[in-house]
Amino acid sequence: MTVSYNQSISTSRPWTFVGLFFRWRGSVWKAVWMQYVAWLGLYFAVSAIYRFLLNPVQRVFFVSIVDYANSRMTYIPLDLMLGFFVAGVLRRFWYLYNIIGWMDNIALMTALYIRGTSEKARQYRRNIVRYSQLTQVLIFRDLSMKARKRFPTLDTVAAAGFMMPHEKENFDQIQYNYNKYFLPFNWAWALIYNARLEGFIESDYYVTVLSEEVRKFRTDLAWLCNYDWVPLPMIYPTIVCLAVHIYFLVCVVARQYVEGSKNEMIDLVFPFMTSIQFVLYMGWLKVAEGLLNPWGEDDDDFETNMLIDRNFAMGLKIVDDGYGRTPELRKDDFWD
Amino acid sequence: MTVSYNQSISTSRPWTFVGLFFRWRGSVWKAVWMQYVAWLGLYFAVSAIYRFLLNPVQRVFFVSIVDYANSRMTYIPLDLMLGFFVAGVLRRFWYLYNIIGWMDNIALMTALYIRGTSEKARQYRRNIVRYSQLTQVLIFRDLSMKARKRFPTLDTVAAAGFMMPHEKENFDQIQYNYNKYFLPFNWAWALIYNARLEGFIESDYYVTVLSEEVRKFRTDLAWLCNYDWVPLPMIYPTIVCLAVHIYFLVCVVARQYVEGSKNEMIDLVFPFMTSIQFVLYMGWLKVAEGLLNPWGEDDDDFETNMLIDRNFAMGLKIVDDGYGRTPELRKDDFWD
Amino acid sequence: MTVSYNQSISTSRPWTFVGLFFRWRGSVWKAVWMQYVAWLGLYFAVSAIYRFLLNPVQRVFFVSIVDYANSRMTYIPLDLMLGFFVAGVLRRFWYLYNIIGWMDNIALMTALYIRGTSEKARQYRRNIVRYSQLTQVLIFRDLSMKARKRFPTLDTVAAAGFMMPHEKENFDQIQYNYNKYFLPFNWAWALIYNARLEGFIESDYYVTVLSEEVRKFRTDLAWLCNYDWVPLPMIYPTIVCLAVHIYFLVCVVARQYVEGSKNEMIDLVFPFMTSIQFVLYMGWLKVAEGLLNPWGEDDDDFETNMLIDRNFAMGLKIVDDGYGRTPELRKDDFWD
Amino acid sequence: MTVSYNQSISTSRPWTFVGLFFRWRGSVWKAVWMQYVAWLGLYFAVSAIYRFLLNPVQRVFFVSIVDYANSRMTYIPLDLMLGFFVAGVLRRFWYLYNIIGWMDNIALMTALYIRGTSEKARQYRRNIVRYSQLTQVLIFRDLSMKARKRFPTLDTVAAAGFMMPHEKENFDQIQYNYNKYFLPFNWAWALIYNARLEGFIESDYYVTVLSEEVRKFRTDLAWLCNYDWVPLPMIYPTIVCLAVHIYFLVCVVARQYVEGSKNEMIDLVFPFMTSIQFVLYMGWLKVAEGLLNPWGEDDDDFETNMLIDRNFAMGLKIVDDGYGRTPELRKDDFWD
Amino acid sequence: MTVSYNQSISTSRPWTFVGLFFRWRGSVWKAVWMQYVAWLGLYFAVSAIYRFLLNPVQRVFFVSIVDYANSRMTYIPLDLMLGFFVAGVLRRFWYLYNIIGWMDNIALMTALYIRGTSEKARQYRRNIVRYSQLTQVLIFRDLSMKARKRFPTLDTVAAAGFMMPHEKENFDQIQYNYNKYFLPFNWAWALIYNARLEGFIESDYYVTVLSEEVRKFRTDLAWLCNYDWVPLPMIYPTIVCLAVHIYFLVCVVARQYVEGSKNEMIDLVFPFMTSIQFVLYMGWLKVAEGLLNPWGEDDDDFETNMLIDRNFAMGLKIVDDGYGRTPELRKDDFWD
Repeated sequence: MTVSYNQSISTSRPWTFVGLFFRWRGSVWKAVWMQYVAWLGLYFAVSAIYRFLLNPVQRVFFVSIVDYANSRMTYIPLDLMLGFFVAGVLRRFWYLYNIIGWMDNIALMTALYIRGTSEKARQYRRNIVRYSQLTQVLIFRDLSMKARKRFPTLDTVAAAGFMMPHEKENFDQIQYNYNKYFLPFNWAWALIYNARLEGFIESDYYVTVLSEEVRKFRTDLAWLCNYDWVPLPMIYPTIVCLAVHIYFLVCVVARQYVEGSKNEMIDLVFPFMTSIQFVLYMGWLKVAEGLLNPWGEDDDDFETNMLIDRNFAMGLKIVDDGYGRTPELRKDDFWD
Repeated sequence: MTVSYNQSISTSRPWTFVGLFFRWRGSVWKAVWMQYVAWLGLYFAVSAIYRFLLNPVQRVFFVSIVDYANSRMTYIPLDLMLGFFVAGVLRRFWYLYNIIGWMDNIALMTALYIRGTSEKARQYRRNIVRYSQLTQVLIFRDLSMKARKRFPTLDTVAAAGFMMPHEKENFDQIQYNYNKYFLPFNWAWALIYNARLEGFIESDYYVTVLSEEVRKFRTDLAWLCNYDWVPLPMIYPTIVCLAVHIYFLVCVVARQYVEGSKNEMIDLVFPFMTSIQFVLYMGWLKVAEGLLNPWGEDDDDFETNMLIDRNFAMGLKIVDDGYGRTPELRKDDFWD
Repeated sequence: MTVSYNQSISTSRPWTFVGLFFRWRGSVWKAVWMQYVAWLGLYFAVSAIYRFLLNPVQRVFFVSIVDYANSRMTYIPLDLMLGFFVAGVLRRFWYLYNIIGWMDNIALMTALYIRGTSEKARQYRRNIVRYSQLTQVLIFRDLSMKARKRFPTLDTVAAAGFMMPHEKENFDQIQYNYNKYFLPFNWAWALIYNARLEGFIESDYYVTVLSEEVRKFRTDLAWLCNYDWVPLPMIYPTIVCLAVHIYFLVCVVARQYVEGSKNEMIDLVFPFMTSIQFVLYMGWLKVAEGLLNPWGEDDDDFETNMLIDRNFAMGLKIVDDGYGRTPELRKDDFWD
Repeated sequence: MTVSYNQSISTSRPWTFVGLFFRWRGSVWKAVWMQYVAWLGLYFAVSAIYRFLLNPVQRVFFVSIVDYANSRMTYIPLDLMLGFFVAGVLRRFWYLYNIIGWMDNIALMTALYIRGTSEKARQYRRNIVRYSQLTQVLIFRDLSMKARKRFPTLDTVAAAGFMMPHEKENFDQIQYNYNKYFLPFNWAWALIYNARLEGFIESDYYVTVLSEEVRKFRTDLAWLCNYDWVPLPMIYPTIVCLAVHIYFLVCVVARQYVEGSKNEMIDLVFPFMTSIQFVLYMGWLKVAEGLLNPWGEDDDDFETNMLIDRNFAMGLKIVDDGYGRTPELRKDDFWD
Repeated sequence: MTVSYNQSISTSRPWTFVGLFFRWRGSVWKAVWMQYVAWLGLYFAVSAIYRFLLNPVQRVFFVSIVDYANSRMTYIPLDLMLGFFVAGVLRRFWYLYNIIGWMDNIALMTALYIRGTSEKARQYRRNIVRYSQLTQVLIFRDLSMKARKRFPTLDTVAAAGFMMPHEKENFDQIQYNYNKYFLPFNWAWALIYNARLEGFIESDYYVTVLSEEVRKFRTDLAWLCNYDWVPLPMIYPTIVCLAVHIYFLVCVVARQYVEGSKNEMIDLVFPFMTSIQFVLYMGWLKVAEGLLNPWGEDDDDFETNMLIDRNFAMGLKIVDDGYGRTPELRKDDFWD
């Protein structure tokens, strides 16, 4: 589930954000602990070799290496790479979220413009919502691990009620080597057109408004696919990730406590300051990783299954229970 | 109340912004003083231990620690993290403000397209505004502390006149495990449709224009909820906040005045420069905190209750007093 | 007046921008000279105390202070704070300028869709423009110092011809504790509606196009007010401004020429490099200050009065002289 | 083919991104290896000269040069230039991708609004899609190397079935010294208009909706050309690229292991840290290069040919197989 | 002419961008060489004074100055100022390019909706295009040096065929102290309206679509003027430019090779590294200068005259040759 923390930070007090440090789900600790433990192991391994295995001559050589590496850490750009990368990825994240697809407007417009309480009118309304939802399910199966696990095959989609058997037959009849996500929209629009012909929609103009609503939903879903097809060029995330990993790999040597270093210092055994640095930079990188592909199973990834359920339930509720139960017109309390 | 300072800075004079330093409400002083006092206490505690409790050997060790920490402060990235984070959060803040929902256009369009001075026409106009307002109230209750305190239950909403008893009954009849914010919009649209059927709206085309206005209002409100559902991934604010707090925690040791340090310096007892740094960075972080969730009770948070009152009063005023009182057409002063 | 310099820089030559250094209006020199003089006075006062008043022991102490402060100047973040802040404020500035409100489209659409050369048709056209303009005047009075000085009361607005006496009466009749800027738009839309009823507009569809134009103008003006109501949270400009001011306050001590400092240096008496730094950073801050509130009386602020005059004159010209004087259709020069 | 890596990173584990390091296609290794080898050769050539050819006096001089250069590396701005440049280019990349042109909406709207199962209705539908696709092919030929290689002449376009012989004749008849990409759209719109006249489209309003869809497609394609005509001013990419290349050219000398340098250090022969720096910065530059012109034959460039095939196949499929095969209306599984 | 380099960089090879270094037109070399030569002259003048004119005492003083200045170069912010400034100016540049005005859509819509092959229908179509083009010419004359040189007076505009004599008379009749760019649009819209009255346009709805196309063109052109009226506040470019120039002015002293400096170094006579720095930073500044006002005669500035010619030729071609020559409907190659 998306990790919600808005309630806890709505009013800013000194300790507000500090509270976030003590969470586990979606936290930086959960995100980096394995890597930190691995890094620490490596660090102490090298430390042990230096302290217990090297002879004095080797130690002098090792100290030179440490000095060499430590004085050149700035060759590796971290801050700006991470800063710009996260900013770029964040924009993409919000864009994807903006086009993720909410059923409400389609359902509300359907309930507004397709009139009548007959069974057929109801079928029109419910099917337009259902066909739109069907495509969202089909597309989420391609993008999201979670949705794919829930609907491993098309049959499971049909079994869940998003598609009826005669519709699945129709769907399967079309042979095509690209995806067929357009088909349910073809159906939805045909329903709108027929509803107009049979008089459930009372004006040509209403047809175009309703059709525009479905078109917007479809175009958004299509762009979700398009953005999946052409991601950020792979070098960009690689280079950022590489920079962070190489940096801390070099740190394994460069940040050892050694005797006779040019920067003479106390031997604290445990690399306190480098540990802090590790958590902060690796956590920063995790922000980017989390935002780069929000379709997985991370704590912060999009809740595709929850969205499908909500969309479908709300869509049907709106066209059914929201239709034709308007309260009577009365004078309100401020009437004069 | 939102802190307004536009008047005082409209014309830029040397002392313009300096004047802002001497305010309290919404100021950086108010935002950081508690944390600063706490930090200062900690600093002097450590200082006292060093000066009065440690023996010479321990002091030497302590000085080494100070030197060790102080020369590694740059490991902690502050500037760029804060800079990029605030920039990202600021975009989100303006976006949320842009969709917060103003009633004016709905009311003006209602007054334009729903014609007639009969009681029923007036009811149509007033109810469309009221139903739109009702949803804003319902949604603000979920998002904003202030609105929740004002309207703890649905009954208080009804009691305040946003909902009439027979409407609340209708609302309660629908059993649903997601929110029911769509319902008042279903009603509003049904009113528009009925107004057309009864001739208060004179063209199908006007129906769609008016309905589009309501649709825009609804979609904006829906996105307020959507952005509340999927916030910025929690690691991002945590990591930024962590960086700032850890930095100053390390400072408690690293910035002590000690004798025999490599960076020999005068003992000023009070950490002047670090205090300046504390106020600036912690204040910068407060900017981010304030922008991240503007639904709380901070000085700078959105004035949800004030907006509700303004929207409702203005909406009713526009459809009532703004309707049908147009001044007579006359030749204006520049007529030739 | 807005300072225009486009002509002088349109073609880039080596000396193009250098020319801007020798201007006064809207220049950095004009913006910072007072503050620079004040700072320099302070600097020399401290310098004089050090040179003439302190005894040797005090001098040694003073030198320690200088060293202490000077080696800690980097604690104060300037570059990144200013960079990000100016970038954020610049976006807001362009946005405000984009919605400042130009009359042209309203006037052109009015001239296109309200047909007829009768006196009444002309009144319709002129009044729609005038009512739109009236609101801009009312709103500019609230936002802009310049407009407020020109129109201190509603009577001056009426006297200037934006409002006729019988309209002002109508306006005053409505008692309301929020602003009444919606009212002239109510009137404008009612005129559009009546023009349709009386046949000056020939299609329902044209009504909505024309009404949409007025709606866009109104919404833009409304957002000008909204952005005035919720400015950038006050901490953000304060913290940036504070950083710059504190920095140079510390410089008054830290940048003194002293003997026996760790960074031994020549005594140039005048702080050349710090002066350069002062002008550049303070100038950078002035950019932000100028952009943050463009409604004042600075050289670079919006020319609200000029815009009002231009809008009104152009609006009336378009609907009067632009209507019905289309040149005869002839074959153009390239006809074959 | 665009390099897809979304699947492998959808869920963030410690080793997720590390996996990207071991890929070749689209990787940073592939992007920089040639330059790195060349640079390394140069480095060792200089190293060999220093070690084996120079006499002691020359060596001392060489060491001075090394010290001189090495202490001035910071004169060359890399991080911020690259950061801002990549950010700017990334925005442009996404914009270009957003307007690259997808046929789906045109085809779906054609199938919705052009009714009838007669041969002629089908021709109308297919030709509107084909003419739109034709222009995309013509424009891609100008922009993309890949498309140009596939369609070296107009005849090959016709031979591939995008244009029929009598259409090509018509196309060739118009003599014109600018491009003629507008022509197929003229045809497409004329078809829409005729379809309305012959009754295949049932409302004027539908004509405008369908025409708007084609208009959007055309405008997007036109902007692809416009952005090709006015690229980013050439100085900007040059200066960034120059900075990176000069930096590493200076490094060839500045980063030599020499004896008697001020920064005394161990002689490791191989420039480990500088190599890391080379890969990271050169890779960062490659990100910018890849994004700046995505019309070439790089691994990450747009798949123009694949898009043409997909658009054409899907367009025809939608208007043919998607038309008139809507499943029968039945009660869905959740009907109560 | 705009410098095009897309072809040469479409596929990224190691030497791709390096090729750009050897160009002259639009290059960084062309942009900075004069300033570099001037700077170098100044540098060697100071150098000569130091080497040949100063006595030993003066030399010691000079060396102190050099040390003083050189150790304070960081007081001058360059990187971040340039980075943020260029980013801000780049956004503005793309925005201006986006609204520069392309005739295609107006012409295509005119050809679609104004029907008929009579001479009058053709006149309607051609004149709507010509009037739109006329305003673009008038506005470009105000903004662009190139266009102003081509059309120094209104008579030259008329002589070039954009305006016919009887139209110019009509234009001159209106006395007005603001610009009259609205007038040709008044005419264009009147033509559209008349075309509807005379039946060349077959639906009210088509009128609004066509009128909207003209409206968009006009609004874009108007914003070109608006952005010319309110440029970026002058302090911002000044301060950035000042920083770069002052920096290198100080470098003239600070970067001298002197004996006895604290940073002892070899005397290379020629300032190699500072030269590199000069080219890079001054080139970076040139990017900003080039983007800030693209209306001049630089290599990279907008090709206003070429755009006018293209727009006019293409507009007339589309409405003439693109009208009524649609190829016959036939079965395409993929028909089954």
